[in-house]
Amino acid sequence: MSEPVRTAEVIAVGSELLGSTRVDTNSLFLSDCLASLGIELRAKTVVGDSRREVADHFRRALDRVDLVIFTGGLGPTDDDVTREAVADVLGIGLIEQPAIIERLRERFARRGLQMPDVNRKQALLLDGGQILENPNGTAPGQMFARGRQLVLLFPGPPRELKPMMQTVMTTVLASRVSRERLFRRTLFVVGRGESHVEEVAQPIYSTWLNASPPIETTILAAPGQVELHLVLRSADAVEANRILDAARDRLVAAFAGDVFSTDGRSMEEIVGALLAERSLTIAAAESCTGGLMMSRLTDVPGSSAYVVGGAVVYSNELKTSLAGVARDLIAAHGAVSEPVAVALAEGIKSRTGASIGVGITGIAGPTGGTPAKPVGTTCIAVIAPDGAAQVRTFALFGTRGMVKFWASQYAMNMVRRLLVSADAAR
Amino acid sequence: MSEPVRTAEVIAVGSELLGSTRVDTNSLFLSDCLASLGIELRAKTVVGDSRREVADHFRRALDRVDLVIFTGGLGPTDDDVTREAVADVLGIGLIEQPAIIERLRERFARRGLQMPDVNRKQALLLDGGQILENPNGTAPGQMFARGRQLVLLFPGPPRELKPMMQTVMTTVLASRVSRERLFRRTLFVVGRGESHVEEVAQPIYSTWLNASPPIETTILAAPGQVELHLVLRSADAVEANRILDAARDRLVAAFAGDVFSTDGRSMEEIVGALLAERSLTIAAAESCTGGLMMSRLTDVPGSSAYVVGGAVVYSNELKTSLAGVARDLIAAHGAVSEPVAVALAEGIKSRTGASIGVGITGIAGPTGGTPAKPVGTTCIAVIAPDGAAQVRTFALFGTRGMVKFWASQYAMNMVRRLLVSADAAR
Repeated sequence: MSEPVRTAEVIAVGSELLGSTRVDTNSLFLSDCLASLGIELRAKTVVGDSRREVADHFRRALDRVDLVIFTGGLGPTDDDVTREAVADVLGIGLIEQPAIIERLRERFARRGLQMPDVNRKQALLLDGGQILENPNGTAPGQMFARGRQLVLLFPGPPRELKPMMQTVMTTVLASRVSRERLFRRTLFVVGRGESHVEEVAQPIYSTWLNASPPIETTILAAPGQVELHLVLRSADAVEANRILDAARDRLVAAFAGDVFSTDGRSMEEIVGALLAERSLTIAAAESCTGGLMMSRLTDVPGSSAYVVGGAVVYSNELKTSLAGVARDLIAAHGAVSEPVAVALAEGIKSRTGASIGVGITGIAGPTGGTPAKPVGTTCIAVIAPDGAAQVRTFALFGTRGMVKFWASQYAMNMVRRLLVSADAAR
Repeated sequence: MSEPVRTAEVIAVGSELLGSTRVDTNSLFLSDCLASLGIELRAKTVVGDSRREVADHFRRALDRVDLVIFTGGLGPTDDDVTREAVADVLGIGLIEQPAIIERLRERFARRGLQMPDVNRKQALLLDGGQILENPNGTAPGQMFARGRQLVLLFPGPPRELKPMMQTVMTTVLASRVSRERLFRRTLFVVGRGESHVEEVAQPIYSTWLNASPPIETTILAAPGQVELHLVLRSADAVEANRILDAARDRLVAAFAGDVFSTDGRSMEEIVGALLAERSLTIAAAESCTGGLMMSRLTDVPGSSAYVVGGAVVYSNELKTSLAGVARDLIAAHGAVSEPVAVALAEGIKSRTGASIGVGITGIAGPTGGTPAKPVGTTCIAVIAPDGAAQVRTFALFGTRGMVKFWASQYAMNMVRRLLVSADAAR
């Protein structure tokens, strides 16, 4: 076997993909395919229908990686330049294939049509290349090998490209990749900023970088969570999983309960599963979040088993009429206060009969803040099945949408911690 | 003025963007921004967190275009390599800016935190570069001019990048582009499928393609709406706006009330403005949407003026206890029925004292459907200020999330049509 293919770039060709309304989704599919073969996707590019520019991007990619995959630009029009650009860079010709022209003619004839002359262009094959059959369209794909390097040309439509890539994976690529695969673990952390996560994680993961095999760690801030992605390359699945499980466990321990997910599930899925396992139900009285926490919880299929519902109490009147908060309490402490959060949670728990009650009250902004209670100030209370209350005040930052999202995230995290700690106390 | 900036490339930095689950959406926003300035986006690339590879892509981009825009890689961790890679290629140093460190310290202090030492990295400025303020995050952006070429470094999170790009557009870029601009109009249509919108619009917009200057029309299906984008390139703003206004008006007339927005505002913004103008308030009792409609309405700043709140009534018990729906009514017609939707809307209107009451009950799926009421069946009722009821049953399609979103969209659209038709009746 020749040297294995380890690295790849994807080049999507098409000016329409450079506008503001289209996204190149083929590269997501290809990324998954490559990862499953242990090939690392190093970069992906979208370039317009310019022969010169496609050629330039291709030339640079050949300097960097073992495998270059093109999507698009194989149609019959003047705008379709991928074949020509690749030939330019490889310094080879394009040869018309009578067999392909015959097949195209038959394809049109089956639909009662005559093949337009422009389609002859689709029968041009890179000199020394191989045809990749396209069962779902007129544009055949092509493959060209240059030493250890491979170039694949696929048409752009996903339903044409996908079966073609699947065929290539099980044939030519299967024989040219190393036995190594990529193995992954993902941890979601809540309640700590990106830089604090880095501070905690860095002393741990830095020791894995020089291990054999090394674990690569990436830290990523996402809405409501910081993500730790661990990747390890190995030919031994059992060993790889053992190493990654141990690595995951060390990080989970270091974050002392702030890792809420180690399998890619969202906060609402995690909390939902904890409630379902325990046959508990939940209700909420939401002010500043406007129903977002309940909406997120009910995004999960099967959530009707544990979400009974609740109230959105934007006005002070509704805090009283729907959640039973005493008017005097609001007058004494203000609507955004810990006593009101607790009263909301207690009120909605008793009115709905849910096992757990949640109260959220805060200032989502952009206006409504005061020096004592600036925009983002949010009080969240959770009442446990036994009636015990927990309440916390958060200083949340960002736009109105961010404050709402973080408030719903922290509220669910308080529920999660309650459920997990109740287990520990058993 | 120096030679104008005509061409651009966008480089998104982040290994996480090379996986199969994340899409670089910043480039869509940037593409729009650039188009509005008449700058052509020639290519966009996603590259992993490798200093050497980011540098290589940047070096090639400098050979091709006038403007290179980076997104991402400005965080505080070792993975954040954009600053360093750009400095490598430009052959300049990075200088720590005490003023930025001071600002970062203050930002952390406001949240009662100490700045982690790693964040010092975010104060490194390209020697000879300029800081771009980031009001929504810790990572400042940077700008570097080299002759006619410009390099912009933005942080990755869209809510940080967007206001920064908007500032750059109106300042430095505005003075460095040619006089021709792209002018746009956007129409959002609700209640018609993409192909129906095409059928209505095509006979109209096809006549504009050969006009001078031509109007380009794109039709795009988005969640809850079909969008019509009109684009015209011209150096004469008055003439361009006159032509586009007339084109917009022809389309609005052709869609007979189904165009709900002609200025990019979302359904929740449109409905909110209609309510605010009329000093009306709204409350909802939501079952299948789980609070999503109220959450969307309260995403709009100032919505506390017209959203009083409401109830999430996932369980039948709560439909009775929180929204006053008679138990017998549910038994007779089922929870997903027009009589129950009307009772939910009437009950929540009377319990909250809101001017308008909305009731939503449906089957979000993926389970719970029956032959008579398949998944997606959704009954929505709206009670007008005078007590008049409107109720409709919708057959919604797609995932659980899609059904929830469409139900909230149609409910708000019924409110919108009620408010607009009440005007017409005056």
